[in-house]
Amino acid sequence: MSAAHRSITLPSPLPLDGGGSLASVEIAYETYGELASDRANAILVCHALTGDQHLASAHPVTGKPGWWARMVGPGKPLDTDRFHVICANVIGSCMGSTGPASFGADGAPLAMRFPVITIRDMVRAHVALLDVLGIARLHAVVGGSMGGMQALSLAANWPARAARVLAIATTARHSAQNIAFHEVGRQAIMADPNWAGGDYYGGPAPDAGLAVARMAAHITYLSEDGLTDKFGRNLQDRDSKSFGFDADFQVESYLRHQGSGFTKRFDANSYLYITRAMDYFDLAEEHGGKLAEAFAGASARFCVVSFDSDWLYPTAESRHLVHALNAAGAPVSFVELSAPHGHDSFLLEAPALDRVVKGFLA
Amino acid sequence: MSAAHRSITLPSPLPLDGGGSLASVEIAYETYGELASDRANAILVCHALTGDQHLASAHPVTGKPGWWARMVGPGKPLDTDRFHVICANVIGSCMGSTGPASFGADGAPLAMRFPVITIRDMVRAHVALLDVLGIARLHAVVGGSMGGMQALSLAANWPARAARVLAIATTARHSAQNIAFHEVGRQAIMADPNWAGGDYYGGPAPDAGLAVARMAAHITYLSEDGLTDKFGRNLQDRDSKSFGFDADFQVESYLRHQGSGFTKRFDANSYLYITRAMDYFDLAEEHGGKLAEAFAGASARFCVVSFDSDWLYPTAESRHLVHALNAAGAPVSFVELSAPHGHDSFLLEAPALDRVVKGFLA
Repeated sequence: MSAAHRSITLPSPLPLDGGGSLASVEIAYETYGELASDRANAILVCHALTGDQHLASAHPVTGKPGWWARMVGPGKPLDTDRFHVICANVIGSCMGSTGPASFGADGAPLAMRFPVITIRDMVRAHVALLDVLGIARLHAVVGGSMGGMQALSLAANWPARAARVLAIATTARHSAQNIAFHEVGRQAIMADPNWAGGDYYGGPAPDAGLAVARMAAHITYLSEDGLTDKFGRNLQDRDSKSFGFDADFQVESYLRHQGSGFTKRFDANSYLYITRAMDYFDLAEEHGGKLAEAFAGASARFCVVSFDSDWLYPTAESRHLVHALNAAGAPVSFVELSAPHGHDSFLLEAPALDRVVKGFLA
Repeated sequence: MSAAHRSITLPSPLPLDGGGSLASVEIAYETYGELASDRANAILVCHALTGDQHLASAHPVTGKPGWWARMVGPGKPLDTDRFHVICANVIGSCMGSTGPASFGADGAPLAMRFPVITIRDMVRAHVALLDVLGIARLHAVVGGSMGGMQALSLAANWPARAARVLAIATTARHSAQNIAFHEVGRQAIMADPNWAGGDYYGGPAPDAGLAVARMAAHITYLSEDGLTDKFGRNLQDRDSKSFGFDADFQVESYLRHQGSGFTKRFDANSYLYITRAMDYFDLAEEHGGKLAEAFAGASARFCVVSFDSDWLYPTAESRHLVHALNAAGAPVSFVELSAPHGHDSFLLEAPALDRVVKGFLA
């Protein structure tokens, strides 16, 4: 559907959790639907690790539909006849908001001079955007995966800014296994000689390393059963094994395609910075070690959704979050949906999710 | 304990599943305990992907104890007072048996001229070794992980050669997810410029790629709970996050250590060949598509062991195998053991496993 593509420069330097601040922060964002005169119908949708602001508009590089096009539009769960839907590219990313590929004051790309940021820093930038837009309180903040982390961070740190918080397929902290998989990806990128300490802009990019990182991560987004149903041990374009190292199996060919396709649309340094922000995410740690404390001042209604086949952020993580919300006295509904596709279920056809989202936002 | 280190050259060329044969095959192996005069007390232990013949003797490179030292010795489950225990390095590996680092007739390393092999080819080489040793029928064939695949392949293809088959933490076929993780590792190695199409012997090896491959694989060997118990979100040698890309978290430091340590003892091309053999493994496919057919001629007693925290070869895979053995009318006992360490539980302290092994071999 038609989106308004916009970009602003934040009027003030953005303070960062790591210390210091980031000046002249650009935020690229899209909006769908009209903002009501009382500015009370805005919904902020937060995107995942490799997502972007192209929520329901074609991706400028791949030409593919927006990543949640099925969810946004007239009469859809994020109903653009009622709501003003905003989706902003997170800082650290590479689709128009300030990140490691942005230019510094010296005219050269920041690369690894870009500061290590946190999920809260990303949200601080979103809040600064809302300030510019004159939106004091969101009708809702919504996100899946890393988007859910942002929604929770907003609820915890800027509790007055959202009336509803919808956190899907997410967690209140990155586990050791989550960190481990991200570290594999970072090491794959940094092992690529083309990475060159991050200073590869203008030269060959570390595509081989980034592709390996994406392949490893992609496995974690899918369920074992989903992979078996989709590919099993089927061979790719052949009747028998080649006894070589070509992609004999469909699942190999699929993964290679996922890896190489990703390098066309994503910056390797952004992958380093955003995975780091996710690994640093621990909402309890930010609030004295008790997750319930994070939500002590919460004024929002919460809805937490997990998928039974998600082994990246399994239902146990959502349950942990819901316990803390209950302990904080926050109104929360929680549902584990049955879906075959693992973590990626929130991006795929899941009619049960549509009903939950529609009902919660109503 | 003291091992006899031996190496032989097979007297005949070894036929291969991929066609053709491999001449002058070297097999490096170790033995523990005396072979009885009737040669009926031999136990063949088959090693896993990155294992070797150093079952209970110090590893020549790392100096660490043999990988199953806790299991082999006088009075231990593999009781060397009673049994003659044999462990041979698989072909394709790099610890003395013929593999891609071996020299060809032209005096140069075979590298990628080494043929793609299968699990059955590895076992065919083991059987040829048993022929040389004059061992007609093993008291037992035993293996965990890829070692279990070899034990099953021996039972299916050379049913007269073993009286007992003990298959631990294994599967009768590699799943799509198993293949996917291996493909990530192979792509990481082949993306390393030092890999150079496999012709890196004498020059710098693709250590960076091999380390990434090992890191990704290592995560699959451990359970999420095990990682959380061992590392959680603990920081490494620091009190607070560095806001950089050093190994802030213990789990990152641990994984990097696993990756770099591995490159000192393993050949990257061997990793390619052996993972390929595992991905090709599908015992049913070899036998007309029905797993029960694979065991139609079996004369052995079987014992199948899985671990509840193993998500690489989960209990469902063992159950699938046991159903087929039942359908084939083979005597089989099956136990799922509770252990916190995931797939690697078979290599670690697991007293329940010791009792199962001891009882089954008695």
